[in-house]
Amino acid sequence: MLYNLKIIDRKAVMAIVVSRQKFNGDTMSKQNRTAIEPTREQNYAEWYQQVIKNADLAENSDVRGCMVIKPWGYAIWENIQRTLDVMFRETGHRNAYFPLFIPKSYFEKEAEHVEGFAKECAVVTHSRLEDNGEGGLKVAGELTEPLIVRPTSETIIGASFAKWVNSYRDLPLLINQWANIVRWEMRTRLFLRTAEFLWQEGHTVHESSEDAMEETRKMLDVYAKFAAEYLAIPVIQGEKTEGEKFPGAVNTYCIEAMMQDRKALQAGTSHFLGQNFAKASNIKFQGRNGEFEYAWTTSWGVSTRLIGALIMAHSDDNGLALPPKIAPSHIALIPIFRNEEERVSVLEYCKKIRQEFAGAMFEDIRIYTELDDRDLTGSERNWYWIKKGIPIRIEIGPRDVAANAVMISRRDKEPREKESVHLDNIKAYVLSSLRGIQDSYYQRALDFRQEHTVKIDDNKKFYKFFSPKNEAQPEIHGGFAHSHWCGDTACEEKIKDDLKVTIRCIPFDAEPEEGSCICCGKASDKRVIFAKSY
Amino acid sequence: MLYNLKIIDRKAVMAIVVSRQKFNGDTMSKQNRTAIEPTREQNYAEWYQQVIKNADLAENSDVRGCMVIKPWGYAIWENIQRTLDVMFRETGHRNAYFPLFIPKSYFEKEAEHVEGFAKECAVVTHSRLEDNGEGGLKVAGELTEPLIVRPTSETIIGASFAKWVNSYRDLPLLINQWANIVRWEMRTRLFLRTAEFLWQEGHTVHESSEDAMEETRKMLDVYAKFAAEYLAIPVIQGEKTEGEKFPGAVNTYCIEAMMQDRKALQAGTSHFLGQNFAKASNIKFQGRNGEFEYAWTTSWGVSTRLIGALIMAHSDDNGLALPPKIAPSHIALIPIFRNEEERVSVLEYCKKIRQEFAGAMFEDIRIYTELDDRDLTGSERNWYWIKKGIPIRIEIGPRDVAANAVMISRRDKEPREKESVHLDNIKAYVLSSLRGIQDSYYQRALDFRQEHTVKIDDNKKFYKFFSPKNEAQPEIHGGFAHSHWCGDTACEEKIKDDLKVTIRCIPFDAEPEEGSCICCGKASDKRVIFAKSY
Repeated sequence: MLYNLKIIDRKAVMAIVVSRQKFNGDTMSKQNRTAIEPTREQNYAEWYQQVIKNADLAENSDVRGCMVIKPWGYAIWENIQRTLDVMFRETGHRNAYFPLFIPKSYFEKEAEHVEGFAKECAVVTHSRLEDNGEGGLKVAGELTEPLIVRPTSETIIGASFAKWVNSYRDLPLLINQWANIVRWEMRTRLFLRTAEFLWQEGHTVHESSEDAMEETRKMLDVYAKFAAEYLAIPVIQGEKTEGEKFPGAVNTYCIEAMMQDRKALQAGTSHFLGQNFAKASNIKFQGRNGEFEYAWTTSWGVSTRLIGALIMAHSDDNGLALPPKIAPSHIALIPIFRNEEERVSVLEYCKKIRQEFAGAMFEDIRIYTELDDRDLTGSERNWYWIKKGIPIRIEIGPRDVAANAVMISRRDKEPREKESVHLDNIKAYVLSSLRGIQDSYYQRALDFRQEHTVKIDDNKKFYKFFSPKNEAQPEIHGGFAHSHWCGDTACEEKIKDDLKVTIRCIPFDAEPEEGSCICCGKASDKRVIFAKSY
Repeated sequence: MLYNLKIIDRKAVMAIVVSRQKFNGDTMSKQNRTAIEPTREQNYAEWYQQVIKNADLAENSDVRGCMVIKPWGYAIWENIQRTLDVMFRETGHRNAYFPLFIPKSYFEKEAEHVEGFAKECAVVTHSRLEDNGEGGLKVAGELTEPLIVRPTSETIIGASFAKWVNSYRDLPLLINQWANIVRWEMRTRLFLRTAEFLWQEGHTVHESSEDAMEETRKMLDVYAKFAAEYLAIPVIQGEKTEGEKFPGAVNTYCIEAMMQDRKALQAGTSHFLGQNFAKASNIKFQGRNGEFEYAWTTSWGVSTRLIGALIMAHSDDNGLALPPKIAPSHIALIPIFRNEEERVSVLEYCKKIRQEFAGAMFEDIRIYTELDDRDLTGSERNWYWIKKGIPIRIEIGPRDVAANAVMISRRDKEPREKESVHLDNIKAYVLSSLRGIQDSYYQRALDFRQEHTVKIDDNKKFYKFFSPKNEAQPEIHGGFAHSHWCGDTACEEKIKDDLKVTIRCIPFDAEPEEGSCICCGKASDKRVIFAKSY
């Protein structure tokens, strides 16, 4: 009876059906409850953990601050890698791999750099374990020089670059590395801040300051394009203030995104290093005039943090929401049957649909399908895939087989909304839905950011904007404030101390405008973006 | 005049031309000299280093035992990864990522395992660096428990698996990890033995001993197939002896390949771990009968060592030789011109040829082309690509443009051998050449192994077989000996002490045969493979 209803009727019926069904503790227990508890409104921080848990993306390990990235989460990272890797190649970069360990003496070469990383690094001091005489093991074989597990690789890669670069003919040198990184963070949070994380770090060497600056900005553009077109996250490009830049850089540029708790998340950075690291690592080349000079370098990176951004940009109270261009898989096929005869015909029909998508592409992305024929109710399987964020769910029952049709649901619509689609149209319908989902996630994130971004010129209003909106969630506040800043670090520090609000960036598109500093009232010539941040 | 000669004449002329040309120190200085010095015959170990250096694959870093993998070498690793990753997926495995650090207490859980790895591991004991009061830094923030940088991940992954596995319904659990590994090796050698290396490690959990054993053997088959079909390396599959197996395993299976110095290289291993690690990590599941029991696990891995195998299986005295199915790039286009007018027309023609190969596939492999229009002589560029092992070189001069043809050389033929091919036939010619090169490398390696493999039943002949063939290269010896072994570890040890020869494996295809142990003369029922090894 259920399967030959028209769309509108079916929806009504489904609502009733769903409300009657029993869910296990993992899913929903009432029609109006959401799959994720608490909701964003109730407790944003805990909602974030629950989305990750319910989508089975990652978990904390027993090793302090280190996470385990589970298959569904790791597949997102692989898609990020694959896409960025193509973009890096198209801009002339090649991958290479450098040592995990950095000798302490290398690390000490750039004063600001070591200052920035020395407080939180893993130090290898011994090379073996020995019997401690009590049935256990003790460390032994002390190294003559301690080794730092790389928190970033400027100094170790610089040592190679010094050997590789001899003449202006060797430049530009455009290298990228995919690697793991360790920073001994005090407070950790899955994907956002972990002691070990995965990232890519681009390191390039140039003949002139102009060339290096062009590279720095070009790679920031690559990140912004990737965030917008693949992650469906609109970002603001800008420059970091002196206090927020990378230790050792001349300028740091960043892309900043707004999360659903209105905080900013720095999603990628690109650093113009001037000659600082070239001097520290002695990267010199013979220029066109025959003279030897120090080279100009850049570095730029994004990390598994992007997965945190992805989660907080799009997910809702029913769990993870994945833009199709970065989803590990795109379609969940959910066969529904009551007996062996139905099972055979429904599964046969599922195979036909799967065949329809074998090798199919959604633009530059290969479409993957999951056939979920586990011994669970249709509703349980539906909610399983909703919580995992799969873009499209297709239910197939005996009536669908008879009608040569399927019931299709989109992750960006209400969970119970379904549409009956004839087999002949299924591929076109899915392709257009994938584009629709990709666009709707981007548009929602953009609308949300615009809704929570204001220009503020009054100090009191500024302080009010960043105050908690309700007591239960003291972290929820106004969002992004475009306000004037005089350029003085003291004002930046005061606002940070008072409100935990920082200058996220001086946006590239900030128009010249006369105003007065939101903190001290002194003259300012443009607005910067203030926000709380991850 | 050069370009319209027929092939046979052309070769003769080229030999003269080449002998007249001047080469810089990096290439050849006389017709009969080879590009790599010393040759394999002169000094095999140094030849290996020089092949790597001349192909720009990798270099030693200043960090003890750690290598820098340069772009051409890393691209080979990426191709290995890409191909194996597809094979792992097709056999149901999913990628995940686990912590770099293993707490000392985890490490101690499996006695044989810790015994095997404790002597050579990097131990993190501190979490920061502090000013030492003398302008330098000292280690600080001692950890309560030392952390071992993973030498392999059975124990850390086991801790997660213990949480993930509850019921037989959760099995099999089929996980793979791509990661970096650290083993504090005393004597290191690029790709073959380095303190840090890259690898994949499969870790799986099963309901029964049979299922786990099936998995162990299946993945060894995957490795053997990959080695044969992609790396063009014939391998022998077999089982390790008790003395040579993985610390903590019940059985270790391996693939063994013969290198050009007739030594064996273990190219991959697959371990049946029984319930050893399940007990150490407490991986239990509720079986079909409702009872809780320990699971059965496996692990299997290959590493950047495969690049060492690749180099030593196929390269010659002119440098690296890459099977097309694993080469980072396939065709070097070498335009030759004497003036601006020729430059324009030749480069235009090169573009046309490149277009011919845009998006082209050699079976499952995308074909890449390199346009080398650097300001070097044609010969210098030719030798550059020969030493890098690119399968196909295409020279294009003004006469070729006029004749609508190109001159094609194959890396598996003599460096000066060229064939004139009409533009219409170029794609078909290249595709068939790629298949030809792939096959010829495999066949040569197989012939070489067969030539240097003998059955030996006499103890004196055995000792003679493994003695140096000449004084200059004391390492060069007979090759693989198929000989009888009684099964006693004492005999294995004696041969190892006397000759540095080990039992590489008990081959799966060893036929039952009565004989007497090559060492002690006691009864034996089959032959095993003895060899020197890397």
